[in-house]
Amino acid sequence: MSAYDRLKARFARIATLGEAQGMLHWDAAAVMPPGGGAARGEQLATLSGLAHELLTAPEVAADLAEAEAAGDWDSANLALMRAAHRRATALPVALVEASARANAACEQLWRVARERSDFAMVAPALAEVVRLQRESAAALAAATGLSPYDALMDSFQRGIRAADVEPIFAAYERFLADALPRAEAIQAARPAPVPLPGPFPVPAQQALCREMAERVGLDFAHARLDESTHPFCGGTPTDVRITTRYDTASVAQALLGVLHETGHALYERGLPEAFARQPVGEAAGMAAHESQSLIIEMQACRSNAFLRFAGPRLHATFGGDPAPYTPANLAGLWRRVERGFIRVDADELTYPAHVILRFRLERALIEGKLAVADLPGAWNEGFQRLLGLSPPDDRRGCLQDIHWYDGAFGYFPSYTLGAMAAAQLMRAARASLPGLDHALEHGDFTPLRDWLRLKVHGQGARLGFQDLLRAATAKPLDPADFTAHLTERYLID
Amino acid sequence: MSAYDRLKARFARIATLGEAQGMLHWDAAAVMPPGGGAARGEQLATLSGLAHELLTAPEVAADLAEAEAAGDWDSANLALMRAAHRRATALPVALVEASARANAACEQLWRVARERSDFAMVAPALAEVVRLQRESAAALAAATGLSPYDALMDSFQRGIRAADVEPIFAAYERFLADALPRAEAIQAARPAPVPLPGPFPVPAQQALCREMAERVGLDFAHARLDESTHPFCGGTPTDVRITTRYDTASVAQALLGVLHETGHALYERGLPEAFARQPVGEAAGMAAHESQSLIIEMQACRSNAFLRFAGPRLHATFGGDPAPYTPANLAGLWRRVERGFIRVDADELTYPAHVILRFRLERALIEGKLAVADLPGAWNEGFQRLLGLSPPDDRRGCLQDIHWYDGAFGYFPSYTLGAMAAAQLMRAARASLPGLDHALEHGDFTPLRDWLRLKVHGQGARLGFQDLLRAATAKPLDPADFTAHLTERYLID
Repeated sequence: MSAYDRLKARFARIATLGEAQGMLHWDAAAVMPPGGGAARGEQLATLSGLAHELLTAPEVAADLAEAEAAGDWDSANLALMRAAHRRATALPVALVEASARANAACEQLWRVARERSDFAMVAPALAEVVRLQRESAAALAAATGLSPYDALMDSFQRGIRAADVEPIFAAYERFLADALPRAEAIQAARPAPVPLPGPFPVPAQQALCREMAERVGLDFAHARLDESTHPFCGGTPTDVRITTRYDTASVAQALLGVLHETGHALYERGLPEAFARQPVGEAAGMAAHESQSLIIEMQACRSNAFLRFAGPRLHATFGGDPAPYTPANLAGLWRRVERGFIRVDADELTYPAHVILRFRLERALIEGKLAVADLPGAWNEGFQRLLGLSPPDDRRGCLQDIHWYDGAFGYFPSYTLGAMAAAQLMRAARASLPGLDHALEHGDFTPLRDWLRLKVHGQGARLGFQDLLRAATAKPLDPADFTAHLTERYLID
Repeated sequence: MSAYDRLKARFARIATLGEAQGMLHWDAAAVMPPGGGAARGEQLATLSGLAHELLTAPEVAADLAEAEAAGDWDSANLALMRAAHRRATALPVALVEASARANAACEQLWRVARERSDFAMVAPALAEVVRLQRESAAALAAATGLSPYDALMDSFQRGIRAADVEPIFAAYERFLADALPRAEAIQAARPAPVPLPGPFPVPAQQALCREMAERVGLDFAHARLDESTHPFCGGTPTDVRITTRYDTASVAQALLGVLHETGHALYERGLPEAFARQPVGEAAGMAAHESQSLIIEMQACRSNAFLRFAGPRLHATFGGDPAPYTPANLAGLWRRVERGFIRVDADELTYPAHVILRFRLERALIEGKLAVADLPGAWNEGFQRLLGLSPPDDRRGCLQDIHWYDGAFGYFPSYTLGAMAAAQLMRAARASLPGLDHALEHGDFTPLRDWLRLKVHGQGARLGFQDLLRAATAKPLDPADFTAHLTERYLID
């Protein structure tokens, strides 16, 4: 067996442990009784530890040095193996374990602190998390030649640097300063949308969500739809598990949430089978992943074309007055621009402002330019500058997201890079598929799905984020497609 | 860290991998979409392989040789570690893998062959399974000093030998030859029981099953109740997962099935926490486990005392004519003796005959005294002798159970040893708890549960099957308690 074949077998084993972890994570979020939590923590930690041992075993370095791979896919696979090994061996086991403990302790405290809107309560734990993240970032930086913050960001989306993100975000900030008041004025001049009458019985919502997910392209022989407090897409490529939550007063939350997770699920389902359980057979990163959820949820399913399909379909399910189900009224409800404090509730125009704020603050924390104690003040000041609002408390400010309190620094930019990539991909798809909107108007996602499978899903991690966009759209990330999309959707009366 | 502490850490890791496997097995049976099957097989095989590597790593033998443990529990733990290591290292990896492949292939074929009642179709695959089982048995025998069949049986129930089982089963065969016609005559002389009216809506059955499981002692903060084709108890001690199946025409199947699985679940829940994830903290074996399901289902829940509680409770749930819900009528329905071909449908009087037949046949197969080709004939002949019936086809004969076709030889005796132990334990419990039946009559399982937790569950695997019974009942397995129970229940008019 060649060194490369030995490595493939080893990485398949590591990926299979990751699959088991994926299922156990899903179970914990969707169905586990509360008393199972402690044992589940042990199970996940044991699987992580074994995967880390497999990746850092002494013989791996020799195999990586000796291995040769021919062809695009195998060359990329070997390069990804080397990168994974470099990152894994850069971090001392003691640091990994200290981080895991600090993250878990901080996250527990954060749940209470957020509830009480008491930042001081969690500040020391967060300071410890940040201290260890800085240490990890420094170690990764030394191993990769990146800056510390870039080294963290690279673990979520390979190949993206703060130097790429900074000008893009600065330009968006300028765009938004002009666009937001204009969008608000246009919106205010229109009649207020009429709420859908409801109530929306949960079984009917479940059936509708399932039908819509199938329509978008999810095959329930390889998927489940369940409920959890925080919707997510988990599981494995041949057994994806998406979740949502239901509110009998509103169908938008569950339905649009399911469409979003279906976008993630289609990516996993469409990954190249020939490289299943190999690094190159995985998704290309978190920004790429978010582009796939958002192209379904934001680009396709909030398009005028799809709303013409969705309106009658929803009315047929829930009955009552048909008037609120017109495409124009649905657009008024589901494409409403509104400055708010909470990222996850934000519309697509203001959402990047939430991300820009976090990017700047987390970078400053990692670079030692911002102290944890000063975070609430910096948050509120930045929020005021970006969106003109002052958070009334830290619960609606710097305590709202789990990410930092769980040790995830460098993740936030992926949300907005993904939104931008989604707009760029949609534009390219429309250009090469003239019947795309006509199909969406009939609830037919086949053309879009086939295009995404070819251009994105089936590419796995062979290409980095920028190269993936280059191959699919003939240019690297170009935020102009996103602002053009927003302009057309929100700024033209 | 001492050698024993190193071993404890290693066995905890192995057990945690087993927990992960337990959850993935549950998932596969209860909720997995069909398309997830192939990946699940990989996940389970990878976890098994890693557990085997951890158990057979070169440093384990040295630690086991060096380790010292003080006190009953730790001494027993170390002895169990040594036994597990001896068994694991006795089997060449190539043989383990060949067996796993042969079992999986045979089991797949068996599903079709059973459906078509076509033994010839699966016979070559079964012959290969038997060949490999004989090879494994020989290797285990060489390592343990046991006979080949005993070495297999020992992996399901430590410390039980064919030489113990044989006279017990021979005596039961003689008992049954006299008891069965008498029980049938007594039953025939009574008025036929009236079926419960039904229908039994599934949601009402689910709520009732859950309530009854809680009443027996299952805490749903640490448990789930779901549906699967074949009811089972899985999961982990702090997160047990029981399943059942519902039939709107009958409540007995779901309810008695849940009570049976609840008995298994209580055992897992009551294992000694101080030795969680250690060999000595596990259940004492499959016969011990079956004694706990049967003491709940057969001994307690089909007792006259509990039927007096269950009747009104069921009538309150399902309504209709109250007459069929009398304890006497429920007894007529749920304690009906009937010769039949199918083991899993058998009553407690004839059930051992099904087991005795399988014990004799599987032992002959392993000892090379019976060829696979001759199995159907030997089955039908033995069945005729034990129960006076001739199976009309192999589907209702030697094709009915999955065990052999999946490579499980030496398991069957556990069912009847467990039934006998259940009777013996119930008798001892009644002797030391004079209020036991009074409590059951009020749906109160506390006295029985507390006694079982003390005498059985909390003992873990510290004692072998016979010593566990000795400590709890002051004698080793004594089938007279079982025949006394059957005599009282079925042979006294």
